[in-house]
Amino acid sequence: MKKEIRILGIDDMPFSFGDSMVDIVGVVMRGGVYLEGVLKTSIEVDGRDATQKIIDMIFRTKHKNQIKVMMVDGIALGGFNVVDGREVYKKTGIPVITIARDKPNMEKIRDALKKHFDDWEERWNIITRDETHEIILEYPVYVKNYGLDMEEVKNIIRISTIRGAIPEPVRVAHLIATGIKTGESHGRC
Amino acid sequence: MKKEIRILGIDDMPFSFGDSMVDIVGVVMRGGVYLEGVLKTSIEVDGRDATQKIIDMIFRTKHKNQIKVMMVDGIALGGFNVVDGREVYKKTGIPVITIARDKPNMEKIRDALKKHFDDWEERWNIITRDETHEIILEYPVYVKNYGLDMEEVKNIIRISTIRGAIPEPVRVAHLIATGIKTGESHGRC
Repeated sequence: MKKEIRILGIDDMPFSFGDSMVDIVGVVMRGGVYLEGVLKTSIEVDGRDATQKIIDMIFRTKHKNQIKVMMVDGIALGGFNVVDGREVYKKTGIPVITIARDKPNMEKIRDALKKHFDDWEERWNIITRDETHEIILEYPVYVKNYGLDMEEVKNIIRISTIRGAIPEPVRVAHLIATGIKTGESHGRC
Repeated sequence: MKKEIRILGIDDMPFSFGDSMVDIVGVVMRGGVYLEGVLKTSIEVDGRDATQKIIDMIFRTKHKNQIKVMMVDGIALGGFNVVDGREVYKKTGIPVITIARDKPNMEKIRDALKKHFDDWEERWNIITRDETHEIILEYPVYVKNYGLDMEEVKNIIRISTIRGAIPEPVRVAHLIATGIKTGESHGRC
C-alpha cells in the first residue's frame, strides 16, 4: 500500500439540544500528514440522511478520484444518524472504515434507539449487520470495514496515525469540527 | 530555532457582498506539519476590529503560551479590515508575520481605501508604516515582520513550508476557511 494514499476523514460538529441540523466535516489528507482539502455538508440531528449526504459529498468533490478510503468517526453522526458503510461503499466504490476509540456499548445503544425512535430496528440492523473488530496497535480501536480486509485496515491505520489512537484524517476533522463550531477545538474523537 | 516551533496561522473565510460579518480561522501547528488546534472568531467586513479580535482570540486560547509566532494571510482580513501587526505583537508578546504570495499593489490599495472609507488615511498609515520585504526561497513571498529579524522570518518560513510558497499554518487555515464556508476548499491564499 502506498504511503501517500489519499484518505477522507469525516466527523461531525458538536450540536445542542433543539438543533435540527448539524454540519459534518470531511478532510482529504495524503498519507497521514498533508492536508489537501476540506469539505462540509449538513445532516439532520438524529435523522436518517447521513449515508446519502456523505455519498453526495463524495460525488461533488474534485478529490473523488483520488480518495482511496474513507474513515468515519464512529457508526453514527449528528446523534443517531447512522452511517451505512455498506451503502456508501456500494455507491461510491470507495472502501469505508468506521473507527472508534472506545468499545461500543451495544446494550446502551439499543436502549437509546428503542427509547427515541419508532424506526429503531432499522437503525439497529444497520449498526449490527456487520462485525465490529478490535484492533490493537499502539492503542486499541474499534472498527467496521467495508471493501477492505483486516490487514489492509491495519496498514491504513498505521500509515495515517502519528500519535495516539486516532488516524490523522479523523483527528483533523474532529479539530476542525469542534474549533469552527465553538471557537476553539477540544476533546477526543 | 526549534523545528517543532508552534505557529498560529490566520486566514479569513470568503464573504459575499452585503455580509456584515465574516469568520476568521486560526490554526495552531507544531512545525509545519502537525495540527494541534483550530480557533475561530468573527470580524466586521471592512471594519476596524480585526486587530483586537485577533488579540482576544490569542488571549482566549489554551495554546497561548505555546505559540511562538503568528502568520497572517496578507495585511487585511474581511476586505479592508487592516491587521495592525505592531499592535498585536505589543499586546500579546507574540511576533507577527504578514505574508502574501503576490507583491502588494500599493497604488491600487490606496485608491480603494480612498474610495470606500472616510478613515482611509488611518488604514493607509497602518499598512505603510512598516516595510514590506520580498523573500525569495523556492518562491517569492512578501512579508511584514514584527518582533523578528529577517533571518528569523526566513527560518520560520523554511521550517513551516512543505510545498509551494505558503507556509502550512496559513495554507491549512485557508483550506479550512474556504471549505467550511463553501462546502469545498479552493483557491490560493
